[in-house]
Amino acid sequence: MGELSTAHGVIQTPCFMPVGTQGTVKTLSPLELEQSGAQVLLSNAYHLFLRPGMDVIKQAGGLHNFMHWQKPILTDSGGYQIFSLALLRKIRDEGVEFQSHIDGTRHFLRPEDLIDIQRDLDSDIVMPLDECVHYPCAHDHAEQAMERTLEWAQRSKEYFARNQSHIAGSGQQILFGIVQGATYEDLRETCAKQLIEMDFTGYALGGISVGEPRTLRYNIVKFVTEILPQNKPRYLMGVGLPEDIIQAVESGVDMLDCVVPTRYGRNGTAFTSAGKLTVRNSGFSQDFTPLDKECRCYTCTSFSRAYLRHLCNTGEILGLRLVSLHNVHFFLELMRQIQRVIKDDKFLEFKKEFFGKYNNGADSR
Amino acid sequence: MGELSTAHGVIQTPCFMPVGTQGTVKTLSPLELEQSGAQVLLSNAYHLFLRPGMDVIKQAGGLHNFMHWQKPILTDSGGYQIFSLALLRKIRDEGVEFQSHIDGTRHFLRPEDLIDIQRDLDSDIVMPLDECVHYPCAHDHAEQAMERTLEWAQRSKEYFARNQSHIAGSGQQILFGIVQGATYEDLRETCAKQLIEMDFTGYALGGISVGEPRTLRYNIVKFVTEILPQNKPRYLMGVGLPEDIIQAVESGVDMLDCVVPTRYGRNGTAFTSAGKLTVRNSGFSQDFTPLDKECRCYTCTSFSRAYLRHLCNTGEILGLRLVSLHNVHFFLELMRQIQRVIKDDKFLEFKKEFFGKYNNGADSR
Repeated sequence: MGELSTAHGVIQTPCFMPVGTQGTVKTLSPLELEQSGAQVLLSNAYHLFLRPGMDVIKQAGGLHNFMHWQKPILTDSGGYQIFSLALLRKIRDEGVEFQSHIDGTRHFLRPEDLIDIQRDLDSDIVMPLDECVHYPCAHDHAEQAMERTLEWAQRSKEYFARNQSHIAGSGQQILFGIVQGATYEDLRETCAKQLIEMDFTGYALGGISVGEPRTLRYNIVKFVTEILPQNKPRYLMGVGLPEDIIQAVESGVDMLDCVVPTRYGRNGTAFTSAGKLTVRNSGFSQDFTPLDKECRCYTCTSFSRAYLRHLCNTGEILGLRLVSLHNVHFFLELMRQIQRVIKDDKFLEFKKEFFGKYNNGADSR
Repeated sequence: MGELSTAHGVIQTPCFMPVGTQGTVKTLSPLELEQSGAQVLLSNAYHLFLRPGMDVIKQAGGLHNFMHWQKPILTDSGGYQIFSLALLRKIRDEGVEFQSHIDGTRHFLRPEDLIDIQRDLDSDIVMPLDECVHYPCAHDHAEQAMERTLEWAQRSKEYFARNQSHIAGSGQQILFGIVQGATYEDLRETCAKQLIEMDFTGYALGGISVGEPRTLRYNIVKFVTEILPQNKPRYLMGVGLPEDIIQAVESGVDMLDCVVPTRYGRNGTAFTSAGKLTVRNSGFSQDFTPLDKECRCYTCTSFSRAYLRHLCNTGEILGLRLVSLHNVHFFLELMRQIQRVIKDDKFLEFKKEFFGKYNNGADSR
C-alpha cells in the first residue's frame, strides 16, 4: 500500500491504470471513468505526437484539458509502439528514426524529444524512451537494448531535470526509469541497479508480457521487484489479466496498466467474480441475470446478459460500451479490494477466496 | 401542442422520437437518452422479431424491461423494412412472405402477426403492417399498395381490439393508422378518409421521404395533415432534418422520428444552432470552442471541436458517442423550444430566428 503524489492528485497504490492511448479510453467517457473510480489514466506520447500532434495539444493547454480528465495521467514514451508499429525504424544511439505507421511520414526522435513532448502533454508521470525487444531474444541483443535503455534513461533524467523549472503546465512532473533486459536475470539486475543509482522517482518493468511463458514472466517480475526499492512505486507495464495482477501485487508491484478490460470488452468478453464470460455466446441468449451479480456498475445494475448478448450479436456500439465499462469497473474494484486486504493484512485469504470463485469459470454455463 | 397518454407515461407534443431500431439508440445509453429529455423511443418489430426473437423478449417481460427504458415506446411494424431489406418478398393479400436479410430464413407475416409481436413487445404505440412503395411509383401500383394498406389496417384494428383484453403487459396499447398513397393527392385523400372512418387513436404519414423532391414532400405532408383530425396525433414517419421538422410542425405534425441525429453523429456531422458542422474537417483541428455554444449537453459542456475532430479522425468510438449525443440533445431541445413558442403563439418569429442563425452554416468556418 502506498501513495504517490502528483500535480493532479494523489494516487493510492496498488493501482490499475485504464489505457487511453490516443487520449481516450476506448468507448468510455471521462465521466464514466471517474464514476468507476479510476485514479489515473495512461496515454501514449508516440501516438499523440503523430495525431493530433503537439501543436493541437499545446493549444489545448495540455492533455488533461484536451481530453477533459483533470486527474493524474501517465504517458508512455512510445518505445514499445515505435518498435512494434513503426515502419523502417533505425535505432541509433542518438535516437530512433522511423516512418509513421499512419501516413508514412519520417521522424527522428531522441530521448530528449520525448521529454519535450511529454512536457507539452503536461503528463503527471513521464516515461523515458526505452528500447524494447521481442521474445525470444538472444542475450547479446537484449544486452545491447538494455544498455541503450540505460544511456537513454541517463540522458532523459538530465534533460528532464534541466527543464522542470521551465514548465508552464500544472506543476512538477515525475520521471520513472524503465528496467529492460528481456528474460535474463543478469541483465535485469544490472539494469535495475544502475537505474536505482540514477535515483528515479519510480521504476517500471518494461518488456514484460511480450509472448514469454507465464511462469517465466512471473519469475522475472518477482526477481526484479525484489531488487527495486520498496519505498518507490514499482510499475509493471502492460499487465494484465486479473490473475496476473494478483501475482504482480503479491510480488510487490504498485502500478499496472493493460488494454485487456477494454479490448476484451469490445469483443464481448466480460471479467466477473465467477470468471471470464463471453456474453456473445448463445448460451446467454435467455439469461436475464446481470453479468456479475456482485458488481454495482451501471451495466450490471441495469442490463441483463441476454440484452448484452443481443447487442454484441447485432454489432451495436452500446454493447461494446457496456461490457467495457463493466470490465474497467471490475478491474478498478479488484484494486480497491486489494488495497483493503493489504491494509488489513488479509491478502493471502483474499487471493484464495478470489480464485476459488474466479476459477470455476462463468463461460461454461 | 398536445398530450398523448400511454401506458408508460404522457408524451408532450410536438415530439421527436430517437430511433432505437434493434432495441438500442445507436451508441447511446437509456440513461443518456433520459437525461437528454427523450420522452419516447422508436423501435422496430420486424428487426426484433428476427433478432433477438420474441421468445427472448417475452422472457424479459417485454421490450421496456429488455432495453431498460421505462418510458413510452412506439414500434413500427416493419412494413418499410420488409420492402426495403428483406429478400425474395412476395406480397399477398393475406400477408408478406420474405427471407430474412440476416440469415435467409423464410417467414410469413400477416397483419395479425405483427399485432401479436407488438403485444409481446408491450409497446405503448403500435403500428399496423402496411405496404410501402418506392419513389417514383406509377399511380396504379401506388393505388394497389394503398388499398392493401387499408385492408390490413382494418384487419389490424379488429384483431387488435379483440386482443387488448388479453394483454398481460403494462396496460392499454394504442394503435395508429398509416396513410399511404405515394405522392398522389387523390390516393392520399382516399386513404386518410377511410382510416378516419376506422377511427384510430392516431394517424401516421407513411411512405414519405423515400426520394421524392423536397417541395413535393412538403406539399403532400401539408395536404394530408390538413385532412387528418386535429384532435388526434399526426405522426410523420422517418422525417427528418431540422428544416423538415420545422416545416412539418408548421403543417400540424405532432410526432416525428428519424435516424438522422444518430446516423450523422456516427459520421462526425453535428447539428448546431449555427447550422451543420462536419467536425471531421481539418478546419476544426485547432478549434477549442464547443460544437454549439448554445448547447448544454455533456458533449458541448466538456469537449472542444478539436478533440471531437481528433476522435472522429482516429476512429475512436467515444467520438461517435459524443456527436450522436449532442445531435439527439439538439433535436430534443429543438422540440422543447417549438413546444414553448407554440404555447406562446410565437412560432413564426421562432422559425425566422432559427433559420436566420442556422442557414449561415457552421461548416464554412
